[in-house]
Amino acid sequence: MRGFFKPESIAVVGVSPRETNLGRRILMNLHKYGFSGVIYPVGRSGGSFQGHLIYPSLTHIGRPVDLAVVLTPAVTVPDVLRECGELGIRRVIVESGGFAELGQDGLVLSAKALAIAEEYGIRFMGPNGIGTADVHSGLCVPFAEMAKPRPGGVSIVTQSGGVGMQLMMQFEAEAVGVAKFASIGNKLNVDEVDLLEFLIDDPETSQLVFYLESFSRGEEFCRLVASSDKPVIVHKSNTSRMSSSIAASHTTAMLSDDRVVDAALAQCGALRTRTMRSAVDAAKIFSIPPMKGRRVGVISRSGGNAVIAADVCAERGFALPNFDKHVLDLAARHVRAGVIKLQNPLDLGDVFDMDTYKKVLSDIVRQPQIDGIVFLLTYSSTQDPAAADSLVDHIEQIAAKHEKPIVLVLQTWPHETARMKQRSPFPIFETAEEGVEALYVSYRGETHRKQRRARVPKVSAKPETARRLVEAAIGLPHLGAKAFDVLDAYEIVRVPGQVATSKAEAVRLAERAGYPVVMKIESAFAVHKTELSGVKIGLKNAAEVKAAFDEIKNNLFKAGYRPSEFEGVLVQPMADRGLELIVGASRDRDFGPLVILGWGGIVAEALGPPIIRMAPITKRDAMGMIDQLPARGILNGIRGNPPYDVDALADVLVRTARLIADQEAIAEMDLNPVRLYAKGKGALALDARIIPRKESLSKKS
Amino acid sequence: MRGFFKPESIAVVGVSPRETNLGRRILMNLHKYGFSGVIYPVGRSGGSFQGHLIYPSLTHIGRPVDLAVVLTPAVTVPDVLRECGELGIRRVIVESGGFAELGQDGLVLSAKALAIAEEYGIRFMGPNGIGTADVHSGLCVPFAEMAKPRPGGVSIVTQSGGVGMQLMMQFEAEAVGVAKFASIGNKLNVDEVDLLEFLIDDPETSQLVFYLESFSRGEEFCRLVASSDKPVIVHKSNTSRMSSSIAASHTTAMLSDDRVVDAALAQCGALRTRTMRSAVDAAKIFSIPPMKGRRVGVISRSGGNAVIAADVCAERGFALPNFDKHVLDLAARHVRAGVIKLQNPLDLGDVFDMDTYKKVLSDIVRQPQIDGIVFLLTYSSTQDPAAADSLVDHIEQIAAKHEKPIVLVLQTWPHETARMKQRSPFPIFETAEEGVEALYVSYRGETHRKQRRARVPKVSAKPETARRLVEAAIGLPHLGAKAFDVLDAYEIVRVPGQVATSKAEAVRLAERAGYPVVMKIESAFAVHKTELSGVKIGLKNAAEVKAAFDEIKNNLFKAGYRPSEFEGVLVQPMADRGLELIVGASRDRDFGPLVILGWGGIVAEALGPPIIRMAPITKRDAMGMIDQLPARGILNGIRGNPPYDVDALADVLVRTARLIADQEAIAEMDLNPVRLYAKGKGALALDARIIPRKESLSKKS
Repeated sequence: MRGFFKPESIAVVGVSPRETNLGRRILMNLHKYGFSGVIYPVGRSGGSFQGHLIYPSLTHIGRPVDLAVVLTPAVTVPDVLRECGELGIRRVIVESGGFAELGQDGLVLSAKALAIAEEYGIRFMGPNGIGTADVHSGLCVPFAEMAKPRPGGVSIVTQSGGVGMQLMMQFEAEAVGVAKFASIGNKLNVDEVDLLEFLIDDPETSQLVFYLESFSRGEEFCRLVASSDKPVIVHKSNTSRMSSSIAASHTTAMLSDDRVVDAALAQCGALRTRTMRSAVDAAKIFSIPPMKGRRVGVISRSGGNAVIAADVCAERGFALPNFDKHVLDLAARHVRAGVIKLQNPLDLGDVFDMDTYKKVLSDIVRQPQIDGIVFLLTYSSTQDPAAADSLVDHIEQIAAKHEKPIVLVLQTWPHETARMKQRSPFPIFETAEEGVEALYVSYRGETHRKQRRARVPKVSAKPETARRLVEAAIGLPHLGAKAFDVLDAYEIVRVPGQVATSKAEAVRLAERAGYPVVMKIESAFAVHKTELSGVKIGLKNAAEVKAAFDEIKNNLFKAGYRPSEFEGVLVQPMADRGLELIVGASRDRDFGPLVILGWGGIVAEALGPPIIRMAPITKRDAMGMIDQLPARGILNGIRGNPPYDVDALADVLVRTARLIADQEAIAEMDLNPVRLYAKGKGALALDARIIPRKESLSKKS
Repeated sequence: MRGFFKPESIAVVGVSPRETNLGRRILMNLHKYGFSGVIYPVGRSGGSFQGHLIYPSLTHIGRPVDLAVVLTPAVTVPDVLRECGELGIRRVIVESGGFAELGQDGLVLSAKALAIAEEYGIRFMGPNGIGTADVHSGLCVPFAEMAKPRPGGVSIVTQSGGVGMQLMMQFEAEAVGVAKFASIGNKLNVDEVDLLEFLIDDPETSQLVFYLESFSRGEEFCRLVASSDKPVIVHKSNTSRMSSSIAASHTTAMLSDDRVVDAALAQCGALRTRTMRSAVDAAKIFSIPPMKGRRVGVISRSGGNAVIAADVCAERGFALPNFDKHVLDLAARHVRAGVIKLQNPLDLGDVFDMDTYKKVLSDIVRQPQIDGIVFLLTYSSTQDPAAADSLVDHIEQIAAKHEKPIVLVLQTWPHETARMKQRSPFPIFETAEEGVEALYVSYRGETHRKQRRARVPKVSAKPETARRLVEAAIGLPHLGAKAFDVLDAYEIVRVPGQVATSKAEAVRLAERAGYPVVMKIESAFAVHKTELSGVKIGLKNAAEVKAAFDEIKNNLFKAGYRPSEFEGVLVQPMADRGLELIVGASRDRDFGPLVILGWGGIVAEALGPPIIRMAPITKRDAMGMIDQLPARGILNGIRGNPPYDVDALADVLVRTARLIADQEAIAEMDLNPVRLYAKGKGALALDARIIPRKESLSKKS
């Protein structure tokens, strides 16, 4: 990817001297950024612009070119790519629109472009993006005027050029330092994962901001995020059907289940933001020391803002420990006697002596019971700005020295806020709630970094046994009772049960299991047992068992199945009553194997959506899933009953996740229900349905 | 209240020529605002400031004074008030701090001040606020430099001076027009309700913004809000215990249950905002025509922002109807051929011809299937600002002409955004999500205005009968079985039942009711029947009834009750099985009578908090409560069972609300459980507990 950011020579294809020509703007941006390499404008028109000769074609340049930027009509792009290939240009940015977002013709063009790229070993970015910028090297090739933030550590990857430009404007306005920018548009060839991989190792990049309308290789994306210590902020839009139509025409983004996206990003430790502002605030907070604990000190000149800050602290589970007495005494000496009660939040009322603030802050940041500070500084235009400047510099120093975050919320006149933001890269927030929220973002990022390395536990299992069973069933509707053997291979506790092919055998199995028993139709073709009236419960004696055997068999035939499709009847003992949940697993197009937890029984849907994670998962992940269940309180045991065995449930989740992750031949599966008992009494899968792939993977690819 | 905003003469008490004197700043603000009346500075020091003679005391002025502003130490305030009283000054603003927020001494001072005010018929604002401003009359008396927004229709009432000043700064920056400002601090005498009442009738005020840390007379506040067509925005902070300590020291605000506040504000139609930004955005959107339906047109220059806008539209239940073809054709003529797919959202790509935008907007705003427009305008600093200016003016005109909201989201360079905000009062938003959110706020406000006049239905009831029953029980722990007669008086359907004082009578009643029956202890002193083992269910015959009678009686005595406290046993038939809910009612200190709905049975708490409304309520309110129940889906009937009789449940809610509202002698009550049956089969109260006030109201007040 380096070639997209540090080229020494660039060809810009599609330049003409015409006023309205967009290629010209690319040259203007390179000029604005002070690009130090060589620029070769290319355009049929010929002529010159900004003193650059405009070459009629790439071939006419006759010198080596590191990067070609193409802004010609879509139909011409394949030829330009081929020309690049012939000339040995291996990095190309295609800013032209009119590809896949236009349906059939576009798809043909895209296919052509990909084939040519493959043929010549070209990596290209786009089409339908605005390309790259590098604030450090002075590269900037978008075709619309680009903001120029100060050089720094934030790198931006965006599908939409418009949103990308807006982020750059915001970062310039907020004085957030930027390293690299890439707008990948339709990401036909280079996608977000290529860039993530590169930027994680890029020394100039300390944190990443993504704006995505779809995921390519989501599973890989999450793996990389989890592998890195750099904060990754993701604004994933296109969450609704309504958006997807425009997104499709815009960057051919597909709509993927937003709950899966949510779960996957949370799990790998990416911070998902839902607004432009929160993305910018996150980038700001990640530029100062992280919040390592939950204990906040709030210092304010306005009682009202202290109240608002404390509200958000409470919402976010932050504590406000008392300050050591000496700092309160110190403050007391400067506060209008008796007007203010001193505590945390510390309301300094209308004290306005910058030195007092410095002293108070230096003292509080040192106190061990404080992990981070929110400082709400209100002042009016009559104030001496120099004093405020030195206060901010002081804050920056002590925050760095004590490695604690100090969130400065500045409440003054807009022009003064703007001035303060520009004079130093130390982040400045504008409202109490945004300041505390930012601190919470920092805290979450930090806790995640700590937990990140929690390894996925070794699960005792016989994967080979399971693989044989599943692969033998490829193409069949489901595994039937063999699903239980797969569960056994992964030591997922389930109700015993055996298949009887005759009435006599059914009775034998029933006596062995002990009455009452349950009987279920066994047939690779009968996936929905209940709908086929293929399930009988509470059978108390041999007579009932025999009758049930016949009835189940006949119901199958009544439903139009052939005798050859009847494989017998599964006989199981009745399980004790308990709480019912459903544990499922499936595969997502973008994010791969998933494990799913939901309530069972008749109120399942009413209670809310199931909880999702990417498989495999750790015990901690499993506990997290359980805690996210709607009405989770039920698990604590109701009306004095003992709590339920959540550890056993977690174990089922961990093993099921491991199973779907190991066994690629499984398309989806569910344990429905899993019956959960009181602490120490475990959990039990009463039924299991495993649906294999339609065809073996080898055939598939 | 008028006297607090339109005085012709002001005395400012607490002025000295000293640099650090805060009183001087009040004079500076009056000067900045261009106050046209007469100002009399008062201060022991004497001397002069800004050419004003400083009078040694109010008495020395010797001329009529409409309004006195006091900024002297707390201890001196009572004397100053008395002096005002003697001089016939009836409006006073006390900006001094150090009252109730300082505990005991403060309380004494406060009591004194109130007594003096009463003696002389003085209304005073504060203490511990920063007083009033009136942008139209040029009044401005805070002791810190105040922003000066353009004159307009937004009036602000705030407890915290700091938050108030910040709002004024924001409104100045956003060019939101302001009418009046009042910081009421501890609101010892003048409170938010006094101001609400005044501002609702104030012709200069078109909408209200409140920042409150506590409610005084919340019930009255909500009644007034509901009575007015003016939008009321409320930022109520101090929602957590952590905040309440600082709030207490800050403005003596008490913490009230935030769920009650939420319910009450939603019910009366106030818009509760949780951030400064959303309060300002709301004030902005209420300054343009309201959103009358759910159908939005999105027009954007950036596909990415169109996607983000569409996401929020979907979240908020907005529809994006197709535009009429001719507007798409019109657009097509100006779009880079083929790059953009035309639809709603309409992505105009890099068209930048202001006239095209004017044409497209004029056309779309006219289309009947569109209720409002979000226009995402991106442009760079190379653009001709004059063109943008005329576009904004055009938007303002067509929005007004067609009475539809057009939300302009401007995405350009910060200095240009600032310029655009200042040049016209037409609101400008900065992100797609905030723009759509504002439109949603407008829509909610409008729907509420439409529903507001839904009258509280006449409920057929015998209030007098109920009153006699309840008042007879005042001082007793509860009404016992007489609660059922109160229910009957309000036609709340309940299980029949009569009290037997002897075994023989119990059997007679049981036979009449029909077996099986339920028996419950009857005693005004036994509030918690179950805990006393005072309930027996499913009694199948006379023998069981007799046994139960003795057992219940003995259990009562075992629990230490005296024979005189045994009043018999309630005999009821067993009710059919059904879904169990709890309907309750109580009184909130701030918001008066409340009606409460929650799930019954053992998972009640696990499912989530109960739903609250201020009583009385309409059928629509009741339906709203039911729809807010967690896991409300259960009521739709599960797994093919018929839906439950929500109308019957709504009827119980409406009648219970009416009951608590009518019967002031009831402290609290609950119907636990209310059993709900399938549609058409009704709802049935199985038990009722009514707890009367400890003492009659007359004695109380």
